[in-house]
Amino acid sequence: MQIALLGGTGDIGQGLALRWAQDTDHDVIIGSREAEKAKAKAQEYETELAGRDCDVSIAGHENADAAAAADVVVLSVPAYYLSDTIDAVADSLGDAILVSPAVGMQRDEDGIHYNPPGVGSVTALAAQAVDDVPVVGAFHNLAAGKLANLDAELDWDVPIVADDDDAKATVSELADGIDGIRPLDAGGLANASEVESLTPLLINLAANNEGLHDLGVKFW
Amino acid sequence: MQIALLGGTGDIGQGLALRWAQDTDHDVIIGSREAEKAKAKAQEYETELAGRDCDVSIAGHENADAAAAADVVVLSVPAYYLSDTIDAVADSLGDAILVSPAVGMQRDEDGIHYNPPGVGSVTALAAQAVDDVPVVGAFHNLAAGKLANLDAELDWDVPIVADDDDAKATVSELADGIDGIRPLDAGGLANASEVESLTPLLINLAANNEGLHDLGVKFW
Repeated sequence: MQIALLGGTGDIGQGLALRWAQDTDHDVIIGSREAEKAKAKAQEYETELAGRDCDVSIAGHENADAAAAADVVVLSVPAYYLSDTIDAVADSLGDAILVSPAVGMQRDEDGIHYNPPGVGSVTALAAQAVDDVPVVGAFHNLAAGKLANLDAELDWDVPIVADDDDAKATVSELADGIDGIRPLDAGGLANASEVESLTPLLINLAANNEGLHDLGVKFW
Repeated sequence: MQIALLGGTGDIGQGLALRWAQDTDHDVIIGSREAEKAKAKAQEYETELAGRDCDVSIAGHENADAAAAADVVVLSVPAYYLSDTIDAVADSLGDAILVSPAVGMQRDEDGIHYNPPGVGSVTALAAQAVDDVPVVGAFHNLAAGKLANLDAELDWDVPIVADDDDAKATVSELADGIDGIRPLDAGGLANASEVESLTPLLINLAANNEGLHDLGVKFW
């Protein structure tokens, strides 16, 4: 499968790109607002993986070109760039599935708080911004640093929400392809806010408890 | 320490009562709107524990009497009984710490959703209902059935929120006394909604994934 990571030059985009390239046979495409930056990052990831005896080719394109080439498009951009990024690629999505991992958060003196848009969740905002494109909420609760550190063994759950069952199954399979990730069905898009709000909790727990950092979650 | 469980006749009140009585030296007091019901449940728990070679004495009182006798009072009642329960015991709290584990939830065709009161969280509602009583949010994310099943080994985290550091430390210690529970500092009362909203996510995950039930959570 062709997976485009828009905003694949940093944060969880980097970790997802490296892990999918290393752990699966899917083709990874890095998207960025600037094609040159995307290509440079793609090459950087290739070099890192080659150093681990993993010879893969990773493409790098401007966001719309990356989206046009992909079966699954991951919006790995901060929540406040989400609408602009979708606008920029909407005409290029074709039959692709759109994946939203972003979370709206706000910091004050008490720490980090969940701060969803009026529509209820960032995932719902993504769904509202596109017509006839299946939207899946996933990968909200992954710690970017640990995800991108290929020496780190993962053992995390990934709750997934979608109204389109086929799209949900496809993204679950993609998540399952990463070693140490277990996809879990968290319901429809209306259940996205409970998944997203777990992210500020993870950040607050890491900030308040010595020895805990780069937190993910396991349900049992 | 004297721990009163208001609403200790069911749900997580039962599990907390049994676990504290079994795993610690604290004295457990069951509270209920009817003293007779509280006493009957206390005796039932004593009998269950005696069958496991654990001879402890558990008291049972009407809620206000239970609260008056306690150092820590756990409001293990559904969210919609919270205000009434606090009103009924407010004059009996003395120097006690009030613990709020309740979560506001609403069910529709999509599953369970977080449905906090206007003040932002049930924990904040509890804090607003009392003067000069330290309020601690804890035990929101425990599956009642597994908690009350003493054959089940636990391995769960309990995020704890409070503005009063001493009260938070006391409740963390109580949580830590239960085998298989790790208390974690999740910040102040303003961070309660992110802790509470994890509960509907746990319920949705259990409803949507075969083989998963009675879910708790572990952060790492």
